[in-house]
Amino acid sequence: MIAELAVTVDVDGEAGLPDGGRGYEHRLSSRSERTYGIARGLPRILAVLAEFEVTATFYVPGITAQRHPDEIREIVELGHELGHHGHSHRRPDTLSAGDQRDEIELGSAALAEHGSAPLGYRAPGWELTDTTLGLLAEHGFLYDSSLMGDDRPYTVAVGDRSLVELPVHWSLDDAPYFSAHADPAGLLAVWSRELELAAAERRPLTLTLHPEILGRPHRADVLRRILERASALGLRSVTHAALASATRPRPAAP
Amino acid sequence: MIAELAVTVDVDGEAGLPDGGRGYEHRLSSRSERTYGIARGLPRILAVLAEFEVTATFYVPGITAQRHPDEIREIVELGHELGHHGHSHRRPDTLSAGDQRDEIELGSAALAEHGSAPLGYRAPGWELTDTTLGLLAEHGFLYDSSLMGDDRPYTVAVGDRSLVELPVHWSLDDAPYFSAHADPAGLLAVWSRELELAAAERRPLTLTLHPEILGRPHRADVLRRILERASALGLRSVTHAALASATRPRPAAP
Amino acid sequence: MIAELAVTVDVDGEAGLPDGGRGYEHRLSSRSERTYGIARGLPRILAVLAEFEVTATFYVPGITAQRHPDEIREIVELGHELGHHGHSHRRPDTLSAGDQRDEIELGSAALAEHGSAPLGYRAPGWELTDTTLGLLAEHGFLYDSSLMGDDRPYTVAVGDRSLVELPVHWSLDDAPYFSAHADPAGLLAVWSRELELAAAERRPLTLTLHPEILGRPHRADVLRRILERASALGLRSVTHAALASATRPRPAAP
Amino acid sequence: MIAELAVTVDVDGEAGLPDGGRGYEHRLSSRSERTYGIARGLPRILAVLAEFEVTATFYVPGITAQRHPDEIREIVELGHELGHHGHSHRRPDTLSAGDQRDEIELGSAALAEHGSAPLGYRAPGWELTDTTLGLLAEHGFLYDSSLMGDDRPYTVAVGDRSLVELPVHWSLDDAPYFSAHADPAGLLAVWSRELELAAAERRPLTLTLHPEILGRPHRADVLRRILERASALGLRSVTHAALASATRPRPAAP
Repeated sequence: MIAELAVTVDVDGEAGLPDGGRGYEHRLSSRSERTYGIARGLPRILAVLAEFEVTATFYVPGITAQRHPDEIREIVELGHELGHHGHSHRRPDTLSAGDQRDEIELGSAALAEHGSAPLGYRAPGWELTDTTLGLLAEHGFLYDSSLMGDDRPYTVAVGDRSLVELPVHWSLDDAPYFSAHADPAGLLAVWSRELELAAAERRPLTLTLHPEILGRPHRADVLRRILERASALGLRSVTHAALASATRPRPAAP
Repeated sequence: MIAELAVTVDVDGEAGLPDGGRGYEHRLSSRSERTYGIARGLPRILAVLAEFEVTATFYVPGITAQRHPDEIREIVELGHELGHHGHSHRRPDTLSAGDQRDEIELGSAALAEHGSAPLGYRAPGWELTDTTLGLLAEHGFLYDSSLMGDDRPYTVAVGDRSLVELPVHWSLDDAPYFSAHADPAGLLAVWSRELELAAAERRPLTLTLHPEILGRPHRADVLRRILERASALGLRSVTHAALASATRPRPAAP
Repeated sequence: MIAELAVTVDVDGEAGLPDGGRGYEHRLSSRSERTYGIARGLPRILAVLAEFEVTATFYVPGITAQRHPDEIREIVELGHELGHHGHSHRRPDTLSAGDQRDEIELGSAALAEHGSAPLGYRAPGWELTDTTLGLLAEHGFLYDSSLMGDDRPYTVAVGDRSLVELPVHWSLDDAPYFSAHADPAGLLAVWSRELELAAAERRPLTLTLHPEILGRPHRADVLRRILERASALGLRSVTHAALASATRPRPAAP
Repeated sequence: MIAELAVTVDVDGEAGLPDGGRGYEHRLSSRSERTYGIARGLPRILAVLAEFEVTATFYVPGITAQRHPDEIREIVELGHELGHHGHSHRRPDTLSAGDQRDEIELGSAALAEHGSAPLGYRAPGWELTDTTLGLLAEHGFLYDSSLMGDDRPYTVAVGDRSLVELPVHWSLDDAPYFSAHADPAGLLAVWSRELELAAAERRPLTLTLHPEILGRPHRADVLRRILERASALGLRSVTHAALASATRPRPAAP
């Protein structure tokens, strides 16, 4: 395995508000921060990706794909991968088994409008259960990207099948850097160092972005500096589908 | 449209405490931090604005205008614009439709004591509802400045009328930078970069200040450095009224 | 009035835990962090003050003076001022009028064991009420240091008497800088700039320290750098009693 | 006493989730962040320690030792010390006296599988009670490392026995630096300065690490820089057992 950079973008839209946006139906300003992500943050991020010829993976909840079909279509037309991100963006561990099944099936149906079935899944809030994993195996998913059990891809056994896991971590997600204060210098320092270490250790690295967060003007500019650094280090960009396909079976370490 | 800087100041006074100050009637220290904003923070900010010949927009809740008429009068006499900021500074989404109507009408009456009717509105806590927008259209407001749906001015349809929206964002408000820690370096870095990007992209930029926050001695000094940078970049200062008047109809993007 | 630096130290001890330590009776580690303040933080701070020949004001709750009489005696013997800081370190706005009276009288009695009656008062949590101010006037206090209504000393009318107010602010208190993260660079930057502005504006400045916070090794070192800067700026150190005695009547601004 | 550096590592595993992981049984992502600590963070930390020939103390809850026996065995084989860290990693102050006894006895039994009985104890959440201290004395522990009453080792009387206390503090723990934001620069600045002051004051210093926190790639790199600095300052590394054995009886200061 060699060092590769997988840029992933969670396009949550209005469903990214707490509990999928329940209770926020009439809070227009909170909702508008989310539509900014779709209207302005997403184009800013797509432009920076194009500048560096990076093909990325976009995780999209079903109802967001239904609300904003034009924007999702553009993502696909630019050659990026779509991943399953639930339907209503509610955390699987808060749902019954039946509701979890609905989430998988409704989300898949919504993405099917934009082409073939998604190969991969990422749980809203990155929190899934054994029930979720069983549903992914049953529905033929190739990979998941919600767990944090390693800093290299690994396989998760689900009954007699297995899923490739493309692990994530909060330090490689943009959101925690902007919850308490707004200076992007922390993100730039940490992500730059993680890129250097992934290159030195010859392992792939997944970064997670949100259009309403890293798509703000001064932060998209920071993404540009991250991709410049990745390019200088010789990291090749890769979608999650390609990364999962190239992953040989290897169980989690402990 | 060209790059312009709209400095806006939310003069909340004691009404800026949570829920409009309910429960804080006897908490004299919390209240005094707010009166500092009126007594010392506001003059510090006015002095820095005068130094750079910047005309700004001051959003003032009705009861704050009634409590501190001399200070509000001075703002007007210096040529700045007054905007509507509710009456009691309670968040519209927490109020009944009837209470929302009272807020608009009482707030307008309080500002009318200082001259003509305000052309613009900003919701307390930047959180409004469809009911609020309907009231603004009914009362003939030209613009609102509470939503985050774009980084350029846009229009919002309200029935068969429309409002100009002059969008805001938490990263362009002083408060989040000082909730968790107190070093103004983060604000200086982000706002400077946003000024550069607004100039490069030829779009107007709205910054939001609070007298009790950015009016502290060391922070007013940071405002000076922000305005120096804006001046060096050739950004012209503009009130929200002027900016809204110059905005041609353009619906929100998504 | 000229630029002077008033260093104040809130020696809360175990009473500085939430609600005066109620519910913490058996939590030995939380309590030990507080005794560290008495045992090690206080000597470190006293040593730095001595190094710069700074005479300071120490606000001490009554029960802390009773629990740690030797340490409080040393503060007095070194020539520093003792101020009233309540008895049990519960916030006045959470107490009945009767309990507030007990707090003032018990706290005064405890400090009386160490010499004359305190001239000044500082409310636990910096939150007081009209009842508190009335008790201070009734008991003949010269000054209070709990409000934030100005950045210069002012007078507060209480019935037909008045109190000198020596105002404080969270940005001039050590605690907020260490709640979310632990790098003292933010405090050093802000306090240094505030010293420069106080000198330039020829006004006194009050800083507030806590032994268990700024008495940690690396932070006491930051205090040293603050006092070096004050000395280089020509700021003379002053106790709150001296500062209040020199304050001419001037009401709060707004 | 001379300046020595005691590196301690709390290997909490899945039991490090709130309340020992109760309620997290089905939250696979939260659990996987913990297994990352065991699978990848721990080897990264062990590698950095080996690079600098540092022998450290690893505090391990009983159930974590039972779940991950191979990893704990490797720690022992590399010559590091094992310390008692409760059984289920629930905070002692939240448990009955009977449950506290079970925690001590079950935890000791689990560590006994890896060799001799532990000499030292560290309370989960660093919060213990008089009951805990009584149990430690009864079970013949030499030392505890959960209190914050000094910045040098001291002794705590428990009935007619005594325990050596090797004190800790939040500013010397990795966790608080990464709760609100993720830039390790704050930790590097503070720990470097604390190393310098410990060397100058000729006292031992205890640092506390967590594999799932400081074992992330870019943070293990920061640990390397900390140990480089310690080495340059001439600080000798020491286990807590060795440090406690060398501590002469000295009561807490106040």
